Amino acid sequence: MRIALGLEYDGSRFLGWQSQAGGNTVQDALEAALAAVAGQPVRVICAGRTDAGVHATAQVVHFDVDVTRPLTAWVRGANAHLPREVAVRWAVPVREDFHARFAARSRSYRYLLLNRGERPGLLAGRVGWCHRPLDLSAMRVAAACLIGEHDFSSFRAAGCQAKSPVKTLYRFDIVRQGDLVLFDCRANAFVHHMVRNLVGALVYVGMGRMSPDDFMRLLEARDRRLGAPTYAPDGLYLTGVEYDEAWALPQRGRIMALPCLSLG
Amino acid sequence: MRIALGLEYDGSRFLGWQSQAGGNTVQDALEAALAAVAGQPVRVICAGRTDAGVHATAQVVHFDVDVTRPLTAWVRGANAHLPREVAVRWAVPVREDFHARFAARSRSYRYLLLNRGERPGLLAGRVGWCHRPLDLSAMRVAAACLIGEHDFSSFRAAGCQAKSPVKTLYRFDIVRQGDLVLFDCRANAFVHHMVRNLVGALVYVGMGRMSPDDFMRLLEARDRRLGAPTYAPDGLYLTGVEYDEAWALPQRGRIMALPCLSLG
Repeated sequence: MRIALGLEYDGSRFLGWQSQAGGNTVQDALEAALAAVAGQPVRVICAGRTDAGVHATAQVVHFDVDVTRPLTAWVRGANAHLPREVAVRWAVPVREDFHARFAARSRSYRYLLLNRGERPGLLAGRVGWCHRPLDLSAMRVAAACLIGEHDFSSFRAAGCQAKSPVKTLYRFDIVRQGDLVLFDCRANAFVHHMVRNLVGALVYVGMGRMSPDDFMRLLEARDRRLGAPTYAPDGLYLTGVEYDEAWALPQRGRIMALPCLSLG
Repeated sequence: MRIALGLEYDGSRFLGWQSQAGGNTVQDALEAALAAVAGQPVRVICAGRTDAGVHATAQVVHFDVDVTRPLTAWVRGANAHLPREVAVRWAVPVREDFHARFAARSRSYRYLLLNRGERPGLLAGRVGWCHRPLDLSAMRVAAACLIGEHDFSSFRAAGCQAKSPVKTLYRFDIVRQGDLVLFDCRANAFVHHMVRNLVGALVYVGMGRMSPDDFMRLLEARDRRLGAPTYAPDGLYLTGVEYDEAWALPQRGRIMALPCLSLG
């Protein structure tokens, strides 16, 4: 029997999603909690392998088990065994041909950038930081060139395991809310560090260190060495994984529009 | 020379504001950072002594020093020495008769309550939690009786050191934002645990365990033993300290209206 789960986590205390020998990853924590509920080992497959320090409001995973449990056991039971920074939001049975990763049509990420003179305190570990004033209009002009299918090599980390650097970006919105700048993007898939590298280059545009034309030439150059520094993982949130409606997965946790993940 | 500071902090890893022998309080951290900047011991006095686990967006303190430093040293210099969960937002010189606590006209607090079936994960340590549906209309009817001058003994912790249980409440708003319920209140002063005890009783009203009339009778009874449990500190934020405009203190960090402290 195959089960799909939605979960959220504060990634700041984890070494990322993917299981490691030393443990302390979100996958390790989730598999241990699900094994405690199932009474047998459980292996999970996720839609988006987040890096160390990256958060999620709506990660999606699937796993197979031989045992039958009420659906609430996969939610409340798992939550009783999970570290407090991780919570399962929902669980549903799915057909055997559902695959959290391969069935996903697109992923959505939000980057939260604190844009003020003083470094973060209350939101330490939750936001990136830029102390200089940013010209959001220039940043939006630059970001507009990202929409559609492109070779994102200029924004790809050296160790990226994606088969191709060509991805299709459906959306890239930049909005200010008080001291926060929110970057919301959705693509069929992302190369490694793509959002954090895009944010780094767009901050250069916002500070006037790069023009929107320079940014467009950077995209066309397909050369990571020309880009800006990778922004901190602290501000990055996996905010949605989109599937065909036929799978009928719950939508809880997905950030559809601003403001949703509001702390106030 | 007397300096006033505004600061914010994530209180979840601290034993509260007030200095303790074992350290690990916000006051201890701030005094150590300011002493490093001043090159001499510094004692600070704050406007609102927050409990363990309680956060602040706009705490105000004052301190006296013999040395002269550029104002930025009290902000950026202190921030370089503070734990990452605490940040100074501003610093201004003030007259010797300014007192962060006694000059304060009122304090504002916000309580963030996550109201959904599953426990917090991403916002662990940042919100209180109630898994039952809440009738906010009934809660607002109940809360309306709090406005004005009242004896708040029914919402006062046993060890409270306030001289009098009589306080004047100027505002108590309850608003839903998605899965979050926000309680915003302002009073000339608060008895110990007052906001958390009010939230506890209002959640009872919202669940139908107490009627708005019961809540009014609870206020009039002046007896803490009749009240509901104290809500967790995790969801409580000191969001403002209000002074006469003549002191000309910066307003940064104060939550004036919804939504300001937005995580998205």
